[in-house]
Amino acid sequence: MKLTDIYQPVEEDLAAVQAELQLISQVENPWLANLLEYSLKGGGKKIRPILTLLSGKPYNYSIDRLMPMAMAVELMHMATLVHDDTIDNSTVRWGRPTINKLWGTEQAVLLGDYLFAQAGELVGRTDNLPVIKLLSHTLMIITSGEIAQSHSAFNLDQTREHYLHRIASKTAALFILATESGAILCGAPDEGAKTMREYGRNLGIAFQIVDDILDFIGTEEEMGKPVGSDLSQGTLTLPAMLLLERSPGEDNPVRKLFQAGGGSQFITQAIEQIRNSPIIEECFKVAAEYCDRACQQLERLSESESRRSLYGLAEFIINRRV
Amino acid sequence: MKLTDIYQPVEEDLAAVQAELQLISQVENPWLANLLEYSLKGGGKKIRPILTLLSGKPYNYSIDRLMPMAMAVELMHMATLVHDDTIDNSTVRWGRPTINKLWGTEQAVLLGDYLFAQAGELVGRTDNLPVIKLLSHTLMIITSGEIAQSHSAFNLDQTREHYLHRIASKTAALFILATESGAILCGAPDEGAKTMREYGRNLGIAFQIVDDILDFIGTEEEMGKPVGSDLSQGTLTLPAMLLLERSPGEDNPVRKLFQAGGGSQFITQAIEQIRNSPIIEECFKVAAEYCDRACQQLERLSESESRRSLYGLAEFIINRRV
Repeated sequence: MKLTDIYQPVEEDLAAVQAELQLISQVENPWLANLLEYSLKGGGKKIRPILTLLSGKPYNYSIDRLMPMAMAVELMHMATLVHDDTIDNSTVRWGRPTINKLWGTEQAVLLGDYLFAQAGELVGRTDNLPVIKLLSHTLMIITSGEIAQSHSAFNLDQTREHYLHRIASKTAALFILATESGAILCGAPDEGAKTMREYGRNLGIAFQIVDDILDFIGTEEEMGKPVGSDLSQGTLTLPAMLLLERSPGEDNPVRKLFQAGGGSQFITQAIEQIRNSPIIEECFKVAAEYCDRACQQLERLSESESRRSLYGLAEFIINRRV
Repeated sequence: MKLTDIYQPVEEDLAAVQAELQLISQVENPWLANLLEYSLKGGGKKIRPILTLLSGKPYNYSIDRLMPMAMAVELMHMATLVHDDTIDNSTVRWGRPTINKLWGTEQAVLLGDYLFAQAGELVGRTDNLPVIKLLSHTLMIITSGEIAQSHSAFNLDQTREHYLHRIASKTAALFILATESGAILCGAPDEGAKTMREYGRNLGIAFQIVDDILDFIGTEEEMGKPVGSDLSQGTLTLPAMLLLERSPGEDNPVRKLFQAGGGSQFITQAIEQIRNSPIIEECFKVAAEYCDRACQQLERLSESESRRSLYGLAEFIINRRV
C-alpha cells in the first residue's frame, strides 16, 4: 500500500491540517514568524497527524474535534526534533540546514519551547481533559527517555530491554498520543482508546527500529541526514547491539568506537560489517513483530477503509526506506 | 514589611508547596532525579507560588485546588531560568553553578523541557480549563518575548515601549499566570480574576525593572550572579537606555559597547556612570509607578491580612536588593 493510498480516507482533512499548520507562523513577532515559517516548510511524512485522523475514523469521526490535536502532535514532533538537533549539533534535517545551524542554539532552544507551548495551546482547544493530560504526560516521558539516552551514550553495558524502553519513551510515546487522542476525541469507549493506544505503541516501536536500521543501510540523500549518525552520537541501537552479540571480541568496531568515545573509521567498519551480515534482516524481523502486534489490535475494529489504512501504515513502516 | 511577614497568611501552605516540590525529584530515571534534586534545592524567593496562594485568599481559598498551580508556576519559572542560563552560557545562578555549567547544554535543554512538561502535568491536575489554557498561552508569550530580546541584542534602536513590551512578555506574563490562576481556582468572579491579573501584570513589570536596576547596583554576592550581565548579553534595559538619553554622544560607553558588540571596559564604564547619576533613582521611580498601579487594583478587595501581604509584596519588590 502506497502512502497516498493510506492517506486516502483522510486526504482532504490532512490537507486542511497542513494548511492550518502554516497559519501558525502568522504571529506579530517577525523573527518568530520567520523561524516558524522555515520549520513548517520542512517536510516530513506527517505520519503522526495521519495517525490521529485515522484513529478517529472507527468512532464518531469529527475533523473539528481532531484538527487541533492533529496539529499539536505534529508540532510536538517538530519541537523535539528542533531540540534534538540542537543538542546533537546536527546540521542537516530533511535535506536542508537545521534551525540551530542557521540561527544558532539560542533561537533553536526558544523555538522548540514555543512549539511545545503552541502544541499545548492547541490541545487546550479540544477542551478534553484526558487528552490535555496525555500531552504533558507524553512530553515528560519523551524528555526523561532522552535524558536516559544521553547518559547511556558510549555505554556498552546495555541490554535489549534498555533499548526497547528507550525507544518506547522517545518515539512510541508520541505515537500513543497521536492514536489514543484521536480515538478519545471521537468518543471511543475505554476499550477503543486502549486498542488505538496499543496499536500506536507497537507501531511506534517498529517505526523507531526501522529508523535505527535505516541509519545503517540508508543513504544520506534518502534520509536527508548523515548515515551512521546514531553511532557517532554514541547511541547504541539494535543493529549495533546485534553486531556486539555476534562478534563479542575486542576488535568489534562498535566496542572500539565506544571505548574510544569516537572514531569515524570504527563507524565505517561497523556500517560495513552490519550491512554484510544477516543483522539487518534480523532487525527487520524484530520490527515486523511489533508491526504484527500493532495489527493484531486492529482485529478488534470492524472492517473499513480506514482500518485498511491503519494496516497499510504498519506495512509502509516496515518497507519504508526514507 | 519583611518577606516573612508577607508570607505569614500562607506560611504553612507555602511550606507544603515547597515540600511537595521536593517530591517531584522522586522519579525512576536516576539521572533525571539527580538534575531535579539539584534544581529544586536552588533557592529563589518563591515569589510566584506566594502570589498564587495570596491571590486565592480574597475568594474561596482552597490549598487543595491551589497546590498544583503554585507548584507549576515555580517550575515554569525554573524551566525558563534553566533554558536562559543555557542560552546565555551563564555559569552562576543563586550563588552556585548552573545546570549547563555542571551538566552541559544537552542535559540543561532536556531538563528545561521536562520542567515545562511537569508544570503542564500539574496544571492538568486542577481540571480547570481556563487555567490550563493560560499556562500554554503564557509560555508562548514568554518564549516569543525572549526571541524578540535575543534579536534586539546589541541594537541601539530601541524605545522605552520596546523595553516595556519585552519585560511584560518575559516576566509579567508569568506573574499574571500566578495571580490570575490563584483567583480563578478559588472561584473568583471575572472581575476578581481581572483585578488579580492586573495586579500581577503591574507587579511583574515593576519586578523586572528592579531586577534590571540591580544588575547595575547590586553585588555579585547579593545577586548570586555577575554584575552587568545584561549589558554583556547586549540586552538594553532601562538604566542603560536612560544613560543613552542623557549622554547621546558617540563616547557613551553603552553606545560603544553595542557598536563593538562587546567590551568589558565599556561595561565597567557604563556601570560607573549609571551608579554616579540620578538614573538609578529615576528607574526606581518608574518601577514605583508600576507598583502603585498594582496596588490600585488591590483597592477593589476588602481589607484583610492577605491584602496587606499583597501590598507588602509590592513594597518589598521596590525595596529588595536581592
